[in-house]
Amino acid sequence: MAQTQTGPLPSWNEGPTKASIVDFVARVTESGGPYFVPPDQRIATFDNDGTLWVEQPMYVQLAFVLDRVKVLAPMHPEWKDKQPFAAVLNGDLKALAAFGEKGVAELVAVTHAGMTTAEFEKIVTEWLATARDGRFKRPYTELVYQPMLELLAYLRANGFKTFIVSGGGIEFMRPWTETIYGVPPEQVVGSSIKTRYEMRDSTPVLFRLPEVDFIDDKAGKPIGINSHIGRRPIAAFGNSDGDLEMLQWATLGASGARFGLIVHHTDAEREYAYDRQSHFGKLDVALDAAALNRWTVVDMRKDWKRIFSFD
Amino acid sequence: MAQTQTGPLPSWNEGPTKASIVDFVARVTESGGPYFVPPDQRIATFDNDGTLWVEQPMYVQLAFVLDRVKVLAPMHPEWKDKQPFAAVLNGDLKALAAFGEKGVAELVAVTHAGMTTAEFEKIVTEWLATARDGRFKRPYTELVYQPMLELLAYLRANGFKTFIVSGGGIEFMRPWTETIYGVPPEQVVGSSIKTRYEMRDSTPVLFRLPEVDFIDDKAGKPIGINSHIGRRPIAAFGNSDGDLEMLQWATLGASGARFGLIVHHTDAEREYAYDRQSHFGKLDVALDAAALNRWTVVDMRKDWKRIFSFD
Repeated sequence: MAQTQTGPLPSWNEGPTKASIVDFVARVTESGGPYFVPPDQRIATFDNDGTLWVEQPMYVQLAFVLDRVKVLAPMHPEWKDKQPFAAVLNGDLKALAAFGEKGVAELVAVTHAGMTTAEFEKIVTEWLATARDGRFKRPYTELVYQPMLELLAYLRANGFKTFIVSGGGIEFMRPWTETIYGVPPEQVVGSSIKTRYEMRDSTPVLFRLPEVDFIDDKAGKPIGINSHIGRRPIAAFGNSDGDLEMLQWATLGASGARFGLIVHHTDAEREYAYDRQSHFGKLDVALDAAALNRWTVVDMRKDWKRIFSFD
Repeated sequence: MAQTQTGPLPSWNEGPTKASIVDFVARVTESGGPYFVPPDQRIATFDNDGTLWVEQPMYVQLAFVLDRVKVLAPMHPEWKDKQPFAAVLNGDLKALAAFGEKGVAELVAVTHAGMTTAEFEKIVTEWLATARDGRFKRPYTELVYQPMLELLAYLRANGFKTFIVSGGGIEFMRPWTETIYGVPPEQVVGSSIKTRYEMRDSTPVLFRLPEVDFIDDKAGKPIGINSHIGRRPIAAFGNSDGDLEMLQWATLGASGARFGLIVHHTDAEREYAYDRQSHFGKLDVALDAAALNRWTVVDMRKDWKRIFSFD
């Protein structure tokens, strides 16, 4: 195939998937057209894990949690005999899984709370600079999908404001989303823990508490969107059942042109292949809903010329 | 005085107050200068009640609550004998005040919850279109301070992103802040109640619940700023003790140029004069903190040529 394409979305193969995106953008930006949307209302929301970057073999944030437990372990000798910490220190992910959400919540409490927001930002930034993915041997911030980076840029070039709406931690993402995705901190929506305002030696800080504030997943996504953005998106992009309600909120029962897209992981060779069977990124109801609601489904293997910038 | 001024902030009198604003903006925008701040970090946060529009003789949102109780009363004959509703229906604000925050919370529950977010937006919009302030006989959206509108525009013209951070209801403000202040919904931070996501006849809605989610006042303001914006403002504008922590968060213990400003209501003739004595907009600690921290204090009577656009 000749690589002569110079239009937008160069890493997308020609075909109905790419055409559906270009058609939608053309319709909402056509001045005087029947589907025209003023720029300030061109709100697009993107899931992060599995939609903008890799979420296998585990969420990147979980890799961060596990690494942090190991870093903190010397200060907590009791963890050797205390679950779920012992499971992490022994590298026994099956044992860890047996502790379920409660186990992960305990790990999040000791790794995400008990410091100021500025300190947490520094910890995340330093970890991302040195941590490497086991399979690709690269920083996680390189494991972002090149076609999706092009899509973000393409939408912004057409007057859209792009937001991330993720089940992941809002303060885990904000330190790097502007550099990697071009999405500034104020356009990131995510899960959060509570904070407490304090003055320390005439300097104000926000201290992170081991208490969940908001879970930005499933039906939480429309709620998070409403809280942070205050209007309904006209386009939403996800990859799993956790994104179902966000895609509904963006596309159903509303007038005008609307666009929903689901990234289907079908490429075991270049990335991963998973959906209904997977614990991560389970795509069960959302895939059926896509057919019903005419959401675009990306077949990664067929629709993307390359997956990563280094491909 | 000759009205020949053509620079920015035409409704501000010349003097140290105006000079402090212009100097700050000049410093952070001077390319290559020692205080230069990149545009994406030029975050400015504004309180609303008493800072951008009138908050006397009561918060506009409280006037909305009282009007809504009267509108809903025919469907609630029992309110005639039930407090705090009877106090509202009898126009007895003293009796209402005796019920304190709990009384107001009851009124908010029946006037702000029990409908979808879209329905609430419609109610607010229709109310603002018809309600009139008792003293000025004008829509509340005309009782915004002309010098502050100019300040918002001046900051934006210099690359700032302007946010509202108010103790008022976030969904009470969003329907009109873009038209009146040029601040879009996604740049409004405020107090909120919880919502529930539902599908109704294939249409998604968010249903407003009679349960407080977040109070964006005092120490809540830095928390709300962190949640919605994700970085510290370099400038903050308020008028009362409710804004103290926001001004601290924007200006103290941080490097570079920072700017804090407090609007002091000193003009009983053209607007109102109040501070330490007032229930609304109490300015007790914040006024002392302004002197200590070199925040600019606006003397409305002296510093503003006109207060409203219709002056």
